[in-house]
Amino acid sequence: MKNETPLNIALIGFGTVGSGVARILATQAETLSIKAGRPINLRRVVVRDASKSREYLPAGISVSTDVADVVNDPEIQLVVQLVGGIDPAHEYMKSFLAAGKDVVTANKALIYQHGESLFQLAATNGRTIGFEAAVAGGIPIISAVTQALAGNRILSIEGILNGTSNFILTQMLDHEQTYEDVLKEAQALGYAEADPAMDVDGTDAAQKLSILTELAFATRVPLESIVRQGIDCLELLDLQVAQELGYKIKLLATSRLHGERLEVSVQPTLIRGDRTIAQIDGADNIVAVEGDAVGMTTFSGAGAGQLPTASAVVADIVDYATGRTQLTFQSILRSLKQPSVSIQPQEELSRRYYLRFTVDDRAHVLADIADILGRHEISISSVRQDESSESSSGTARLVIMTHHTTEGSLRGADAELKKLACIQGQSIRLPVAD
Amino acid sequence: MKNETPLNIALIGFGTVGSGVARILATQAETLSIKAGRPINLRRVVVRDASKSREYLPAGISVSTDVADVVNDPEIQLVVQLVGGIDPAHEYMKSFLAAGKDVVTANKALIYQHGESLFQLAATNGRTIGFEAAVAGGIPIISAVTQALAGNRILSIEGILNGTSNFILTQMLDHEQTYEDVLKEAQALGYAEADPAMDVDGTDAAQKLSILTELAFATRVPLESIVRQGIDCLELLDLQVAQELGYKIKLLATSRLHGERLEVSVQPTLIRGDRTIAQIDGADNIVAVEGDAVGMTTFSGAGAGQLPTASAVVADIVDYATGRTQLTFQSILRSLKQPSVSIQPQEELSRRYYLRFTVDDRAHVLADIADILGRHEISISSVRQDESSESSSGTARLVIMTHHTTEGSLRGADAELKKLACIQGQSIRLPVAD
Repeated sequence: MKNETPLNIALIGFGTVGSGVARILATQAETLSIKAGRPINLRRVVVRDASKSREYLPAGISVSTDVADVVNDPEIQLVVQLVGGIDPAHEYMKSFLAAGKDVVTANKALIYQHGESLFQLAATNGRTIGFEAAVAGGIPIISAVTQALAGNRILSIEGILNGTSNFILTQMLDHEQTYEDVLKEAQALGYAEADPAMDVDGTDAAQKLSILTELAFATRVPLESIVRQGIDCLELLDLQVAQELGYKIKLLATSRLHGERLEVSVQPTLIRGDRTIAQIDGADNIVAVEGDAVGMTTFSGAGAGQLPTASAVVADIVDYATGRTQLTFQSILRSLKQPSVSIQPQEELSRRYYLRFTVDDRAHVLADIADILGRHEISISSVRQDESSESSSGTARLVIMTHHTTEGSLRGADAELKKLACIQGQSIRLPVAD
Repeated sequence: MKNETPLNIALIGFGTVGSGVARILATQAETLSIKAGRPINLRRVVVRDASKSREYLPAGISVSTDVADVVNDPEIQLVVQLVGGIDPAHEYMKSFLAAGKDVVTANKALIYQHGESLFQLAATNGRTIGFEAAVAGGIPIISAVTQALAGNRILSIEGILNGTSNFILTQMLDHEQTYEDVLKEAQALGYAEADPAMDVDGTDAAQKLSILTELAFATRVPLESIVRQGIDCLELLDLQVAQELGYKIKLLATSRLHGERLEVSVQPTLIRGDRTIAQIDGADNIVAVEGDAVGMTTFSGAGAGQLPTASAVVADIVDYATGRTQLTFQSILRSLKQPSVSIQPQEELSRRYYLRFTVDDRAHVLADIADILGRHEISISSVRQDESSESSSGTARLVIMTHHTTEGSLRGADAELKKLACIQGQSIRLPVAD
């Protein structure tokens, strides 16, 4: 069974992750060749600036700035494509597949947006795409969903899929800082991008959730169908009140079957403090998958970063070298053709909710709000208004926990609440995970 | 790539896990055939009593009491061997492999004890052994260590690998019950065996740790080389004092590289309360794997039980049906031949420790103990003796937390401490995980 033919690979992009992959390939060469059953040769690297010197590149490797050098090299079997974003990554990927090369990538946005057509192109050309690194970095969640849990009908996927948001929420609570202050610090430390929008508004987590959802439920969920809410609406007070009530607020990505319909959301969510998922702090990610046989299984670890992501990329390379990827990718293609489930309309989402209002600090305010909620059949579980909060401004923070109600009822109530003169500024509404 | 040839399998044993496997194969038949790329046919079942009626068996299946019926059936390619214990499971397994059949098993004791020779026999016959279900039930930890983390040099494996022990410890603390009372309840509820020795003395966890250690470090660790301590030495007071100090006590299985030597232990261990591993309660299992690239990655879920274990068995069956197992098993065989590391002598284990003594409630006791510890260069970090504890008996509980010291120093001190007349009954000594 031993196959000593070397696997020749090319690396497109030598940024953070690319250099991490080169480092692992160089430092673990012998072990990797044992696991893979053959040597893995990094034969070409394509970079933006070929003149820069680079660590961990094998002697005699060809470094160029043109992907055509890879496309036209018949010796390259596998291309490790680590260029981010859609353009030109999408064109690169198509050209590699069309040229009969297999691809490993960490590009989540590309898999989210063009996965369907790229998988089809790969299938047509008898090629494969490995994308373990595209979701949750070093956590092997793609292989868990597609292989390890094969004996299960998956019932739900819940996860913290964006490390930047989780880092910000953790820091806010631990250091009693505002969202804005923590964000600034995170940017200075390199934990958050200069433009953090995709991270903090839930887009990044939603794209990852969409990929996992498609693999688990054979259902394509475009971003527009995901109930999405960012963490930028949160105040420190929300995190503190939630904690006093026994919850942590996390940017939770959820896909859950309700009967034959799928709830798909990415929202700051109150999670009972004793649940594992509530206890993942800092930049870590976690994914909890519930299967009908296995029950709840959770996977956690670094969801981003140079070496964790490179770890997933290298696992994909070894998988390919052994021949497993070819079998797994076929299995994924077949699975994706299973009947899809329909997405639950947003209005029908039924959860408990945390509602926070900034209200005038005077009589009858609570009665007015409670009246509106009651007429929309939103039942109140608990109310909390702290004496101390911002009394100098003449306003107070009012927090209401509801019993189960629907997003539709709340939207109905919202329209009326907006007309109440006693409510100031932005109210927020967060779901509570059961 | 589509392979429509059905995979014919036999099931040996139709107990808890076996019937769970049959149930999943029956209820998920269509999805499984899509994932596997071909139908999976349960063709034969071997049981102790063939006259009993059984759910979830396909029409026309052959139920017999003789494994020879499977050995001699050339149509059976894969045998799912779910007989526990060593005899006759070992003989069965050898006969299947010798007859050219591949095997999937959940038998941890067998893999621990005879894995080496069975793997060799499989290799000689060009066959494979799937054993994902042998460690940590539904948690895909074997595939994580052998595949998903292939790009890592593994630095440590820490885990809660015995659900019964974890259940007992959780119940003791939550319900303020003694070890004996909880054990009785657990036995009545079926969470603990009538003879729980292998669970509570750490044997079960040590066997699982040994299997994981061999896969991660290519190093065979016999039970005798594992520092092993059970939970039956613990009092409720230990759990409570630990909690007040910010720790949870868990039966922790640890393999950790120190330089080029491996610490391997299974001991009740104080773990900082904010670590994920400390927060796994009840019968769940968790495994935290630290890789040099990925950092700390954790996997948790049900470590035992009918359907969780069956979930892992079915994943192995699907893996086999796709052809992946054949590639993975070769990779494992090659990896096991890598240079092994040496086991750290028990005396050199360096940790912080929790020491609990039952002492006469009189002057100079602490001074006597501290003197002995000091002379063995064991430095004390904190001391705690509660006024309330058992004053009626004239004894008190003394808890000492040490700074880093070695198991050897403590053993040296033990010899002297044992001679102190003021120390009553059994003292205990637990490591503290950093």
